[in-house]
Amino acid sequence: MRSPIGKRHWAIAEGYIPGWSHGPEPQFTSHETACILNTADQEAHVEITIYYADREPVGPYRVTVPARRTRHLRFNDLNDPEPIPRDTDYASVFDSDVPIVVQHTRLDSRQAENALLTTIAYAGNE
Amino acid sequence: MRSPIGKRHWAIAEGYIPGWSHGPEPQFTSHETACILNTADQEAHVEITIYYADREPVGPYRVTVPARRTRHLRFNDLNDPEPIPRDTDYASVFDSDVPIVVQHTRLDSRQAENALLTTIAYAGNE
Amino acid sequence: MRSPIGKRHWAIAEGYIPGWSHGPEPQFTSHETACILNTADQEAHVEITIYYADREPVGPYRVTVPARRTRHLRFNDLNDPEPIPRDTDYASVFDSDVPIVVQHTRLDSRQAENALLTTIAYAGNE
Amino acid sequence: MRSPIGKRHWAIAEGYIPGWSHGPEPQFTSHETACILNTADQEAHVEITIYYADREPVGPYRVTVPARRTRHLRFNDLNDPEPIPRDTDYASVFDSDVPIVVQHTRLDSRQAENALLTTIAYAGNE
Repeated sequence: MRSPIGKRHWAIAEGYIPGWSHGPEPQFTSHETACILNTADQEAHVEITIYYADREPVGPYRVTVPARRTRHLRFNDLNDPEPIPRDTDYASVFDSDVPIVVQHTRLDSRQAENALLTTIAYAGNE
Repeated sequence: MRSPIGKRHWAIAEGYIPGWSHGPEPQFTSHETACILNTADQEAHVEITIYYADREPVGPYRVTVPARRTRHLRFNDLNDPEPIPRDTDYASVFDSDVPIVVQHTRLDSRQAENALLTTIAYAGNE
Repeated sequence: MRSPIGKRHWAIAEGYIPGWSHGPEPQFTSHETACILNTADQEAHVEITIYYADREPVGPYRVTVPARRTRHLRFNDLNDPEPIPRDTDYASVFDSDVPIVVQHTRLDSRQAENALLTTIAYAGNE
Repeated sequence: MRSPIGKRHWAIAEGYIPGWSHGPEPQFTSHETACILNTADQEAHVEITIYYADREPVGPYRVTVPARRTRHLRFNDLNDPEPIPRDTDYASVFDSDVPIVVQHTRLDSRQAENALLTTIAYAGNE
């Protein structure tokens, strides 16, 4: 059997949830997404830590991705231990117990026409 | 001779084909593309597996890229074993028998002005 | 303890601060950002060198990122030893004394609707 | 002395020069750019090969990047051995005699509001 693709540690240095939106909900709500892929045959337990510019990191936020599934996680939806403030710079680190792949996407709909960005996250060493 | 550039295993964690489009077809049809480059002197046989949030993976979708050619594959066009549903989160894994390079691009034309995103895919180990 | 995620040397080959903007300041000022994440338990001292098309590199610009913090640095704000001219091609190299993660983002608001781009920077070897 | 950052072999799997433009020239001409950074103390001689979907590769296109310089190369401007056709899928491979960093950017101004994309290119092994 092939081993699952990915790494266990990832970072996204850019994080920013725009403060307002334009267009039909929920597709055009301004959002910041971490797309997580787990190709392993076991559930991935992912711990997310949020870093800020001017205060201590917050976390872990605990997320599970079932075996052989993808989860497109909106940072807007993270609430425990606390929501991520809008219109604020942050960054995020992902630590998983099985290899995963993480990709970062933002839909910015503050203006009439939406803008998109994406990048593969940074994969750390094991 | 130089060996072909790339890896044999790739993943794109972000996948989403917008549900509608705006503008002249086919250039402005909302689409999600995997650009595959095969610099080898032999045909690449690529197997694509599609991962979903809430059901088992589907595949393999079989694609060939001739020697010394690029193929810009629209996920919209994958039909065997089944089409990828619109407006649905997915992810994809590429397994090739020769080294290839994979890059991910989306044109989103749901609104009057199109938006674009791209990233190099994640290259797994051999 | 886990070691901090990242590398000490990074490069962004694309750099360009648009010459004008459109929309409310400061969010919609056209800008080019390097998002720096420092997960280490010590302050990161980062030296940035700016490369141009037709003259010698300028720098270092010295930036600090406190322990366990992220800093979203606008190239527009770099002034010492000199500001980066607008509407001019450049590239940048980051050298840090502790591992960091660097991601590149641009908001281009020259037209009525803003456009966004991002990519993880290139991480060099130690 | 630090060795120059980068690799000698790079690939961009996505290539496409839009067939038309909208907005003031030359900034808003639809274009596809390879940003090349050479931090070495010697000139980089770069050979670019263009791959197509349905015919043999074309090249090399020969480009030099002076020592300690960046060059933002528009694929639109490549003419020798032949121009790259518009509205056509292609991919590109870069081979340099010294380490460089390559980043891919497109400005698509086919519609009234421009769209942007970028990604670091894929760095092959030495």
